[in-house]
Amino acid sequence: MDPNKNLITDINALFLGPKSENGDFFKDVLINCVNDHLYWRKDFHPEDDPIISYMEKEQPSYKEIQDKTRRVLDSLSSKLRETSAPWHSPRYLGHMNSEILLSSILGYITAMFYNCNNCAYEGSPATTPLEIEVGMDLAKLLGFDANKAWGHVTCDGTIANMEGLWYARNISSLPFAVKKLKPELVAGKSDWQLSNMRVDEILDLAGKLQDIWKEVRNNSVTGLGVDEKQLGKWIVPQTKHYSWVKAADVMGIGLQNVIDIQVDDHYRMDIDVLEKTINGLIEKQIPVLGVVAVIGTTEEGAVDHLDKVVALREKFEKEKGVSFYIHADAAYGGYGQAIFVDENGKFMDYDVCVKRLHDDGLIDKDINWPTTDIYNAYKALAKVDSITIDPHKMGYVPYACGGIAIKDKRMVDFISFFAAYVFEAGVMSPMLVGSYILEGSKAGASVAAVWVAHQLIPLNVTGYGRIIGASVNGAHKFYNLINKTKTLEINGKKVRFEALTDPDFNIVDFAFNPEGNTDIEVMNNLTLQIWQESSATGAPILKKDFVTSHTELTHDDYGDAPKDMAMRLGITADQWDKVGSIRVLRSCVLSPYFGNPKVTEQYWDDFLDNMKMKLAKLLK
Amino acid sequence: MDPNKNLITDINALFLGPKSENGDFFKDVLINCVNDHLYWRKDFHPEDDPIISYMEKEQPSYKEIQDKTRRVLDSLSSKLRETSAPWHSPRYLGHMNSEILLSSILGYITAMFYNCNNCAYEGSPATTPLEIEVGMDLAKLLGFDANKAWGHVTCDGTIANMEGLWYARNISSLPFAVKKLKPELVAGKSDWQLSNMRVDEILDLAGKLQDIWKEVRNNSVTGLGVDEKQLGKWIVPQTKHYSWVKAADVMGIGLQNVIDIQVDDHYRMDIDVLEKTINGLIEKQIPVLGVVAVIGTTEEGAVDHLDKVVALREKFEKEKGVSFYIHADAAYGGYGQAIFVDENGKFMDYDVCVKRLHDDGLIDKDINWPTTDIYNAYKALAKVDSITIDPHKMGYVPYACGGIAIKDKRMVDFISFFAAYVFEAGVMSPMLVGSYILEGSKAGASVAAVWVAHQLIPLNVTGYGRIIGASVNGAHKFYNLINKTKTLEINGKKVRFEALTDPDFNIVDFAFNPEGNTDIEVMNNLTLQIWQESSATGAPILKKDFVTSHTELTHDDYGDAPKDMAMRLGITADQWDKVGSIRVLRSCVLSPYFGNPKVTEQYWDDFLDNMKMKLAKLLK
Repeated sequence: MDPNKNLITDINALFLGPKSENGDFFKDVLINCVNDHLYWRKDFHPEDDPIISYMEKEQPSYKEIQDKTRRVLDSLSSKLRETSAPWHSPRYLGHMNSEILLSSILGYITAMFYNCNNCAYEGSPATTPLEIEVGMDLAKLLGFDANKAWGHVTCDGTIANMEGLWYARNISSLPFAVKKLKPELVAGKSDWQLSNMRVDEILDLAGKLQDIWKEVRNNSVTGLGVDEKQLGKWIVPQTKHYSWVKAADVMGIGLQNVIDIQVDDHYRMDIDVLEKTINGLIEKQIPVLGVVAVIGTTEEGAVDHLDKVVALREKFEKEKGVSFYIHADAAYGGYGQAIFVDENGKFMDYDVCVKRLHDDGLIDKDINWPTTDIYNAYKALAKVDSITIDPHKMGYVPYACGGIAIKDKRMVDFISFFAAYVFEAGVMSPMLVGSYILEGSKAGASVAAVWVAHQLIPLNVTGYGRIIGASVNGAHKFYNLINKTKTLEINGKKVRFEALTDPDFNIVDFAFNPEGNTDIEVMNNLTLQIWQESSATGAPILKKDFVTSHTELTHDDYGDAPKDMAMRLGITADQWDKVGSIRVLRSCVLSPYFGNPKVTEQYWDDFLDNMKMKLAKLLK
Repeated sequence: MDPNKNLITDINALFLGPKSENGDFFKDVLINCVNDHLYWRKDFHPEDDPIISYMEKEQPSYKEIQDKTRRVLDSLSSKLRETSAPWHSPRYLGHMNSEILLSSILGYITAMFYNCNNCAYEGSPATTPLEIEVGMDLAKLLGFDANKAWGHVTCDGTIANMEGLWYARNISSLPFAVKKLKPELVAGKSDWQLSNMRVDEILDLAGKLQDIWKEVRNNSVTGLGVDEKQLGKWIVPQTKHYSWVKAADVMGIGLQNVIDIQVDDHYRMDIDVLEKTINGLIEKQIPVLGVVAVIGTTEEGAVDHLDKVVALREKFEKEKGVSFYIHADAAYGGYGQAIFVDENGKFMDYDVCVKRLHDDGLIDKDINWPTTDIYNAYKALAKVDSITIDPHKMGYVPYACGGIAIKDKRMVDFISFFAAYVFEAGVMSPMLVGSYILEGSKAGASVAAVWVAHQLIPLNVTGYGRIIGASVNGAHKFYNLINKTKTLEINGKKVRFEALTDPDFNIVDFAFNPEGNTDIEVMNNLTLQIWQESSATGAPILKKDFVTSHTELTHDDYGDAPKDMAMRLGITADQWDKVGSIRVLRSCVLSPYFGNPKVTEQYWDDFLDNMKMKLAKLLK
């Protein structure tokens, strides 16, 4: 059996298809689910009469409402078709969007009829258990111990990140409450040592406080409010999502307590700089509240050296008695973990994994991915305290559906509205999801959408690994084709064509510059103009030949990381130093079709023709 | 024309119907919307070949995925039908749930295919403008000036409440930043006066700081983190939703800075206690950060005297130079405003309104609703700073869909990630919704669901007023029937049957107690047992005859407010003082059908028979 053929077949059955190839199948299942619901209504006390009579439905006022309903829906449908981005087509290589799973759309719709609210079990007897299940799926996928971990669905990655910071902030304040209430439990520890207890030590300490938990809460940040002296610094890479800035504001810790770490030329947090920064803080006796590493940055898809961050924490703990919380922001890259996990849930050894990816046709043999850097970063996820992972990104389910997993479910006590030990208090208590998380009311339907996806597609190399593998493979093919091209002939002149970096995941950033132009503003303006003609906004979407997104890489945000790209494009070092900003086109290659060799070839040719045409027009 | 008849007809056309009476119409429109999407896919570059071939679809591996998809969806559908609450039936009078609008389900589904993300305009060219429109609908409904106000959809009421507190906290810290950076602008003001500037004064002040906004932010709570000394107290009624406790923790202000105000015997915040509390704080020179009034409490549907809170602020401003932020938590009751607003968007005069409600058949003539208390509270919404209003509650749209409206859009600068004056910077900027709110990624589909509802159903007495009027009317009929009954004969013994209060909105709490029993625990246990047999959880849902929810009213939470109810049930004052807790059954009468006279009669009889049967069994 040709595994490559098999792979393509499977993936294609999971989506509606760029030409609605699976539309009839979709409608067939849809109508079954709708009928299930309609008959269920009738079957709740069949003896109850209908309330609406057939005669009533013939009344003009009734017909009027129906007519208006049709007209409003038609109007909504027109608006959507007029301007929506064509994510279903391989011509769309823009934002972090693509086809979503046909089964998840159906799951969402099916559950929506029952309008479950996962805030409390009584509002969602069917979908709360599914959330517990899905949360554990995520925790296990990421390598956490299923007996200790917990996870749940959030409305998005921003809220999941905020929840991560909420955990870190509240946990860090506990030792100071203990010092006040039960000093004997932390006898001999200085304030500095209280600020540097390991998360698991603090959780053990909390275990001794069950009887006075309310008092403990009242004497920690929950009760007292933020106390900057105890807090310490929250360290993030320069490539962080802006939700981290928002979170620092919302959580009351303040932007002055957030430190950005310079990234290297691969847009990964520079671990030497991180180490120096922490050493600098130690010298001033300023605690580190926590460190965030990003698995799949928003603009570059970069994967931070999470393994090195974890190793650094171990080193600091051992050598200096300094510890801190680690949160992995894997909102984007989290589901990528499935590529490394085999059918038995084992994180494969490196060589085994690479061979498997080649043998199964997930990654082409001429593509050097995953490197050991990427592999090691993913492997380290199991060692962090909390992880953001969004099903509505690489889980291919509809918005809004983010998620968070935590290594140790005892952490929930620190943010829960209820008394300590929510998971011990009774069978029902873990079902009151709204009391243990940042949000309150939440759609059971979005949980159902993920549940259906997880039931259908294993969270390992045979399932999600195949879809995400196809996406990563597609991105690398795109990158390799750019590198193979390098120069275009436009109106008789040479134009440079460069990609930002070898993708860590599935984003390819690129730009063009006419040979001889050293003016960074001219180049940036060209990129802007190309984007304006390739944007999902503006002119009629149905006429766009290729749709992408763009981003600006500035010195303010990234230091000199983008300088190399600028220089490869022919910009002088002086110009970079002066302007300090390059604009690039940004293609998130999420399309499940782009990995298909026939598709890549066809769409690459179209893409190149389209770019040449645009450049010819713009450089006239 | 009989307006009552017309009313019933109209409402009935808006929902699927308790017996799926509108199921065929629904499926017809649904398939149109699905086809629109499927053909749109095909019409994006018709010249592109399909990627999935007909042959491929015949492959066993393809069929296998399809088979598994059907099986997983069947399994989801079974789970949902096995345990979901039958909200579509008038037999369900439990949690804040009922039928949702047929048109909104269709709107959600239609938009979901395009998977819009309203975080940024590029991800949602179709649905971001709808969110701006829907946000303004809410702001206008609540009485805000359309030229100054703003509003948006949130994932839920908890996040909307948090955003309200975020506004209050950040705005209150600005004067202190100004004192540091431009002392001349606040010359002569003491710290006490800086803590007591009016919101509009602070917004005007912010207007003079545009050029140094980044510095201002860095020197306010956003940059510095929470400073308890500047903060002041956040005042809420005892009946507050627990999201306010969560919000105080998340926002870093601490529970010690939250003050609960005793409620009166109508479960409304006691304004005298509020005034005394504020005077007490003034004596100690502790500022008031803000006051929350609830329009529709979660457990009782009580409507706080918002007008008196607003009047109190005016009085304090005038007499003592003391001001504070006011947030109305109208998550539940917000859409009820439509009852008071006429076709021209005018908040009707009291007499005009009452006559209109009777003439249009919204409220029966023998029902004394709205009282002037309720009327005045709603009228005062226009005067507060921010309001939580959830479309997924009385807007009858699917989860998850909360909302918030603010009186003055200049407030957005205080929580926005970007520089000041987001609304002035350019046409596009208000479209970057994710940068001005607490959440990030968010479903355009949930916005579409509200938009469709607002297009179809006017936000006034002719539209939503009719639906919500029917709900309020139904609740009062239920309450009146309880009062008419008062005593049941069970096994030859009398059983008292009492409701908590005359409903301010549409919740009726009630309980039973056998004549002669003075033991509060016995009574509470009886209520618990009735609930266990009437709960949406537990035994097979399709066999339940009546479904309700329950709640506990304790002295800890409510002081002596529940004592009157206990005594009416035959419990002695001593018992109340000793135990301090009564359990009640809680019926949120959201059902759009319960107002229909024929329906009320039939289901009341069924309900009463059912209760008698349960009591007979339990009191044997």
